[in-house]
Amino acid sequence: MIQKQIIVNGVPHNIFVDQDTSLAKVLREQLHLLGTKVGCGEGHCGACNVIIDGKLTRSCIVKMKRLQENAKILTIEGIGTPANLHTIQKAWIKHGGAQCGYCTPGFIVSAKALLDENPNPSRDDVRNWFQKNRNVCRCTGYIHLIDAVVEAAKVLKGDIPADSLDYKLPADGHIWGIDSKYPRPTAVGKVTGTLKYGGDLSLELPPDRLCLVLVQATVSHANIKSIDVSEAEKMPGVAKVITHKDVKGNNRINGLAFPTNKGDGKDRPILCDTKVFQYGDAIAIVAAATEAEGKAAAAKVKVDLEPLPPYLSVPAAKAPDALEIHPGTPNVYYTQKHKKGEDTKPIFDRPDVVIAEDTIITSRTPHMPLEADCAFGYINDEGEVIVHSKSIGVHLHQLMIMEGVGAKKLHIVCNPMGGTFGYKFSPTNEALVAVSVMATSRPCYLVFDYHQQMQYTGKRSPFYGTVRLAADKSGKLLGMETDYDIDHGPYSEFGDLLTLRGVQFMGAAYDIPNIRGEGRAVCTNHAWGSAFRGYGGTQAQLISEIVADELAAKLNMDPWEFRYKNVHRPGTTNPSGQVLDSYSYVEMMEAIKPKYEAALKKAKAESTATHKKGVGLACGSYGCGLDGPDSSNAYVELHPDSTITVCTAWEDHGQGADMGAVGTAHQALRPMNVSPERLKFTWADTRNPVSGPAGGSRSQVMTGGAIKAACENMLAGLKKADGTYYTYKEAVDAGVAVKYDGTFSVPGVPIDENAIGKPFMVYMYGVCLSEVTVELATGKTVVDKVTFNVDIGKVNNRLIVDGQLYGGVAQAIGLALREDFEDIQKHKTMLAGGIPYALDIPDNIEINYFEYPREFGPFGASGVGEIPLCVPHPSILNAIYNATGARVKRIPANPERVLAALKEKD
Amino acid sequence: MIQKQIIVNGVPHNIFVDQDTSLAKVLREQLHLLGTKVGCGEGHCGACNVIIDGKLTRSCIVKMKRLQENAKILTIEGIGTPANLHTIQKAWIKHGGAQCGYCTPGFIVSAKALLDENPNPSRDDVRNWFQKNRNVCRCTGYIHLIDAVVEAAKVLKGDIPADSLDYKLPADGHIWGIDSKYPRPTAVGKVTGTLKYGGDLSLELPPDRLCLVLVQATVSHANIKSIDVSEAEKMPGVAKVITHKDVKGNNRINGLAFPTNKGDGKDRPILCDTKVFQYGDAIAIVAAATEAEGKAAAAKVKVDLEPLPPYLSVPAAKAPDALEIHPGTPNVYYTQKHKKGEDTKPIFDRPDVVIAEDTIITSRTPHMPLEADCAFGYINDEGEVIVHSKSIGVHLHQLMIMEGVGAKKLHIVCNPMGGTFGYKFSPTNEALVAVSVMATSRPCYLVFDYHQQMQYTGKRSPFYGTVRLAADKSGKLLGMETDYDIDHGPYSEFGDLLTLRGVQFMGAAYDIPNIRGEGRAVCTNHAWGSAFRGYGGTQAQLISEIVADELAAKLNMDPWEFRYKNVHRPGTTNPSGQVLDSYSYVEMMEAIKPKYEAALKKAKAESTATHKKGVGLACGSYGCGLDGPDSSNAYVELHPDSTITVCTAWEDHGQGADMGAVGTAHQALRPMNVSPERLKFTWADTRNPVSGPAGGSRSQVMTGGAIKAACENMLAGLKKADGTYYTYKEAVDAGVAVKYDGTFSVPGVPIDENAIGKPFMVYMYGVCLSEVTVELATGKTVVDKVTFNVDIGKVNNRLIVDGQLYGGVAQAIGLALREDFEDIQKHKTMLAGGIPYALDIPDNIEINYFEYPREFGPFGASGVGEIPLCVPHPSILNAIYNATGARVKRIPANPERVLAALKEKD
Repeated sequence: MIQKQIIVNGVPHNIFVDQDTSLAKVLREQLHLLGTKVGCGEGHCGACNVIIDGKLTRSCIVKMKRLQENAKILTIEGIGTPANLHTIQKAWIKHGGAQCGYCTPGFIVSAKALLDENPNPSRDDVRNWFQKNRNVCRCTGYIHLIDAVVEAAKVLKGDIPADSLDYKLPADGHIWGIDSKYPRPTAVGKVTGTLKYGGDLSLELPPDRLCLVLVQATVSHANIKSIDVSEAEKMPGVAKVITHKDVKGNNRINGLAFPTNKGDGKDRPILCDTKVFQYGDAIAIVAAATEAEGKAAAAKVKVDLEPLPPYLSVPAAKAPDALEIHPGTPNVYYTQKHKKGEDTKPIFDRPDVVIAEDTIITSRTPHMPLEADCAFGYINDEGEVIVHSKSIGVHLHQLMIMEGVGAKKLHIVCNPMGGTFGYKFSPTNEALVAVSVMATSRPCYLVFDYHQQMQYTGKRSPFYGTVRLAADKSGKLLGMETDYDIDHGPYSEFGDLLTLRGVQFMGAAYDIPNIRGEGRAVCTNHAWGSAFRGYGGTQAQLISEIVADELAAKLNMDPWEFRYKNVHRPGTTNPSGQVLDSYSYVEMMEAIKPKYEAALKKAKAESTATHKKGVGLACGSYGCGLDGPDSSNAYVELHPDSTITVCTAWEDHGQGADMGAVGTAHQALRPMNVSPERLKFTWADTRNPVSGPAGGSRSQVMTGGAIKAACENMLAGLKKADGTYYTYKEAVDAGVAVKYDGTFSVPGVPIDENAIGKPFMVYMYGVCLSEVTVELATGKTVVDKVTFNVDIGKVNNRLIVDGQLYGGVAQAIGLALREDFEDIQKHKTMLAGGIPYALDIPDNIEINYFEYPREFGPFGASGVGEIPLCVPHPSILNAIYNATGARVKRIPANPERVLAALKEKD
Repeated sequence: MIQKQIIVNGVPHNIFVDQDTSLAKVLREQLHLLGTKVGCGEGHCGACNVIIDGKLTRSCIVKMKRLQENAKILTIEGIGTPANLHTIQKAWIKHGGAQCGYCTPGFIVSAKALLDENPNPSRDDVRNWFQKNRNVCRCTGYIHLIDAVVEAAKVLKGDIPADSLDYKLPADGHIWGIDSKYPRPTAVGKVTGTLKYGGDLSLELPPDRLCLVLVQATVSHANIKSIDVSEAEKMPGVAKVITHKDVKGNNRINGLAFPTNKGDGKDRPILCDTKVFQYGDAIAIVAAATEAEGKAAAAKVKVDLEPLPPYLSVPAAKAPDALEIHPGTPNVYYTQKHKKGEDTKPIFDRPDVVIAEDTIITSRTPHMPLEADCAFGYINDEGEVIVHSKSIGVHLHQLMIMEGVGAKKLHIVCNPMGGTFGYKFSPTNEALVAVSVMATSRPCYLVFDYHQQMQYTGKRSPFYGTVRLAADKSGKLLGMETDYDIDHGPYSEFGDLLTLRGVQFMGAAYDIPNIRGEGRAVCTNHAWGSAFRGYGGTQAQLISEIVADELAAKLNMDPWEFRYKNVHRPGTTNPSGQVLDSYSYVEMMEAIKPKYEAALKKAKAESTATHKKGVGLACGSYGCGLDGPDSSNAYVELHPDSTITVCTAWEDHGQGADMGAVGTAHQALRPMNVSPERLKFTWADTRNPVSGPAGGSRSQVMTGGAIKAACENMLAGLKKADGTYYTYKEAVDAGVAVKYDGTFSVPGVPIDENAIGKPFMVYMYGVCLSEVTVELATGKTVVDKVTFNVDIGKVNNRLIVDGQLYGGVAQAIGLALREDFEDIQKHKTMLAGGIPYALDIPDNIEINYFEYPREFGPFGASGVGEIPLCVPHPSILNAIYNATGARVKRIPANPERVLAALKEKD
């Protein structure tokens, strides 16, 4: 240990530190300045940015010994506070810069350093600065961050007045609608670093908290012969070493398998007992006073394994000699048939049809939220096990883990989350924390490092998919045949659901009267499959949109013409045989046409011998909801201080549940003239009304609907005879209720064995145009521009939907070109996982809204989160083809794959 | 555990707490808002004040379950920051409101609550508010705090401009002198709560820190038969249970005994081995992950004791059948003879002399700093044991504990301290922490609760003292005889020194040509004796000033007349036979005369049948330094950023070492024209130059002298031929040194066996007039006014010396009337210990400076800290007598004792 004096935010601190400790750790764990976040922990993401003696620095990679005596450190806490926001923070709020908010302190510190150095930066200067300093934002797609910095600079220079950054409520007081940039309720907490995330709250637990350190498998498949914790339990600081023997329940996550699943869905152990199924599987948990003690003890746990062959791909797991990964359940454990219309074989056999067919492999995409997985738990004074995590399905996860952990009463609560993008649709750490809390009777926390985040949370499962499309000579689609396997990793939870999504969204944009297909969920030993924005639709539509392009080529039709001819028009039905809730494709296609043509011209003109430019199109859709019937619940409650709680279990993982809830309630309560600050969002909790998970873009529709219903009940209940509304006191005095429930459900029809039904009553639609440049020598592809026409119904709040769409497009670019988790060792970092940096995302992204109101959406709204992961990425793949004539058939279309395709073509 | 949402300083926090935990603990240990201090921990002192939903609240006694959901809490961190001070904080700085600073956040929060409620308070309103809300300040005497609140209110109301609170450097740039109210360098950190004290820094140690919990004796005297830690060591969270067997050295504090001491001074065990010597003695230390775990384990340590009779007073310990508390050393272990001038027996036998004699017992006074004792330690990367504590003698304590703990290299460093008033002249926890650090190789901290502070730190030792004074009929003193025992508790460290102080200061104000006396240090089983402001002079002069008053009465002289006749005049010598360094008594006496006479008149006029008013006088002095020769060292160093380190080991326990060092250096460097902000004070550290302890009012003289010398060397070294001075760069380029040492020593002469010599080369002098009201029915005494004329040489900084003097007078009032630690169980709290609250101290305190420059003081300065504990308290006792005719002969003169004296008189 050493002593050092440092000046933090102008305050001198004498600190006593291990000189090899990082500054970030010292700031957070010793000085408790929790605004400085740790993302990757290895200097790849900038969440931990601070300014040291005037220089922007990633504090996670600065060891204390490198700090000069009396170093002056500026953290987010020194830039501005909720009561006294810095101009940059105000600009960040105005431009919706904070979505999940986890990168926000690091970005604002970075922007401060930039503006200190260059008070008048161009957009390129800002982007280059963020690139150079490795500031990663996974939510926004960067554009609005650059907007914020540029506008903050103008205010700081005095070019524009300071109050241009303030939100101004319109005269009529509304905050709902496409013109509304009302800032989300959590914005101030995010830009000031005062909103506490799971890892922050873990450090605020009472002093008797225990740090959980996992003993994890370092092989992908093995039998467990023995686990010996005796030595580990004697290590200093260890409260307990927990194994499957300490689990009071059946030690299995309940994957809620479909009845037609060949497994029972209870194949995932909480703590491995008989087998290791994938790299990183948790075998034991050390609960210790400190992380260092936990790690030292974890190293002493002896696990005797009998290695088994690891099946890391669909072909390997399907090989005839492959063992059953879960003995008793075949590795191909679920099959989804698809039959719509006539049998397709006669159609494909017709001599006058034009057929295209291709097989595409999608990536095992890592979600790469800035915040690694984290959770904590405790036993409350009622004896209930309480787990706080990044769950985006609190009631779902409660159901999935209760029996496994063996708790009589267990609740799951959402922390503010630094992004999930869907991986937390699966429980990750909840059961581990619950088991530890129950075994130790003490508060416990489990914070993953980024390698654990990469290697031991679910991923988007790869599809090995073949699509055949048949059209008549005019280009009218006649039929589709599909066949695909999904590498779902070792755990079956939602593997059946994902397989179903394949048939629901392959070719979904088009009127295809006749479809036959089959998808299969396959068990492997690679990373388990979990939801990711666009779940299934992402993979399905990549395959079908590539084949659609190929069919257009075979037809000698322009891809736009081919698509325009086939997109849905009133009366046509989607792959589930359902009429659409919005026939907006034609308008969106027509609107994109001139842009498409101009882009083609431009690409042709600007292509050189070394750099080829190209233009690609794609269409697509995604459903909002769970399959078939869906419902949600909420209540609103008026309080003595005139605030109104909008209580749901709408999980906020950065997408904007806070604003969704408040915006919807505000619109619904307009007759009562409630100012927006009076509406209080609640963090999701299983003790709140059951709202269903925040996935599948269902929440604005379903929980928004429930909120609207609750508000309508409140309006009816509080309305006085004279048309005005009771105050709290008046209501209580008059014996009138102040709390009103609301329920909303949609008349969905579950799909039948052939995948026909009404799985979603609300959909989102999109048409995307991408323009790319491919460097022939390297295969490196740059996306120059994306134009995305979307129909997400009526818009609740512009900042929120912009955030979802621009950010989603950025993720689609990453998905198309960069992101991968195939090599378990290599891809364990954010950088190697291919996270897009500022220069990987163009400044030129254009989102155009086509507001077709939805019957079942509150005030006509649909969802939004999935659609940008369903349409743009195929358009990029198609643009690469358009630029080069080379067809990349596996994503990411990284330089190696593009180069290989270029070679194959030649 | 429960979950609660609270809004702290405008920021919402979800917290997870044990509902029986105090809010203070949650704020500090979970939210790390360390500005909220914990003083007494039981609601007696207000250091932990916060505002909850608008109401001032002592957070140490608010259990979390009592907090409303969404309670709004304002802490010092929410009031102002170093960069953005609140008006109250500015006023606090201007008026020198923060001395040790430990009570400051609680006071400022309290003042905020008051001004929120009453924007225009009178002085009485403020004082009553602080009384009602139990805000205790142990340093200032309250007056300047009231000044600050009243002026802040004026600024807040707009009655006076805001900048009236700002310090303005005079045109010539000086900050030295009686006109200077330059704020002390630590003021901003103190008023904002950002200066970290030992308990705060303990919470900022790395996560592997261990909390030390003591196993303490609950009897006062016993043989130890066995200590069994086996069960305790198995308790959760325990890293180690440490006993004397783990101590690597000789397990004894080295008390640095005088050669004539009958003991060797090595009688105090670090951890008890063979015997328990006093209540609270440390028998074992549990080093655990958390305090709760440490306490649980400490309860499992089994100590088998053989009880011995406890000797809790001098008579008990001197009884013929009393055991030797330290076998082999007599309980009366040190005797100090005093012989000045002629033998006194013939004088006292003369028929023409008037004699007064009395025996007075002084109190075992508890220091009651707001901050309980605390320390932490670690082993640094050089393998040295580093202990950070409230030591006010770092090099002294290094010497005292090194051999005992058995460390090869050990350093002691000062934390910012919430007051010591001298108790930390003795090591308390340093050896315990060092032993623990060495036994565990981990950072360890030990923070006492207030009961431990009261029961297990040193106290001012009671004197059982008889003084006989003889004067001729004209009132001229002819001789003095003294005889006293000191109950020094079980540990001899400095017991010999304290005994010496008795003979040095009994009758010290007067020209007494002939003195014979003897004092004895007695070992008892009550709390061990440690330094306290006025050390020895406090007790000695109480006894002799009472007897002086009695002699005046016998002479039928007015007490002023008697004193005026006998105070020193040029050429007379003090009890050590030394001519004075300043003959200011005559002027001070003459100056007080009209006030005294007016007071007498007023008292007579205002006395009623039930309430008697009276007026008392006292004179006194104290030395500045250690005995005999004394020296100190310092260096000053110019840095590239033009700052200059003023490096010493001048310990700052709130008295103002920061300002002492900076003010002295600034004055010495005036030719270089250094702005005060460039001068950087250093916290004391054994790696700094040896400056000697910060006790005995020696530091401004000795270390001030060393600083002056170092600065003069710097001036000489950096002066260029043209009369200007090198900058850092110029100096380095020219090969000129930038670091300059300075040493200062005084030509003291150690006292001889008869206590004759030149123990101090600089003294302080004072004359005090007190006016009291005694309620006859209850014996309750109120001090109405104190007028204190002091000669402390030239004043460095007015805020500092005012702070010492007003605060010292307040302590003298407490000493005279309230403070006690006689009943080990009853007196274990701040409240029961008699700490003075706001209404116990009059608003009417008048300090008058008589600036006689000192030959050996830098720029003529003397010390200041001890003098207010040497003079005012006898004047209060004399005033009680003057009011009632009843003589109280034991302090504190609490109502019971005054009543008893009234009865005895009747």
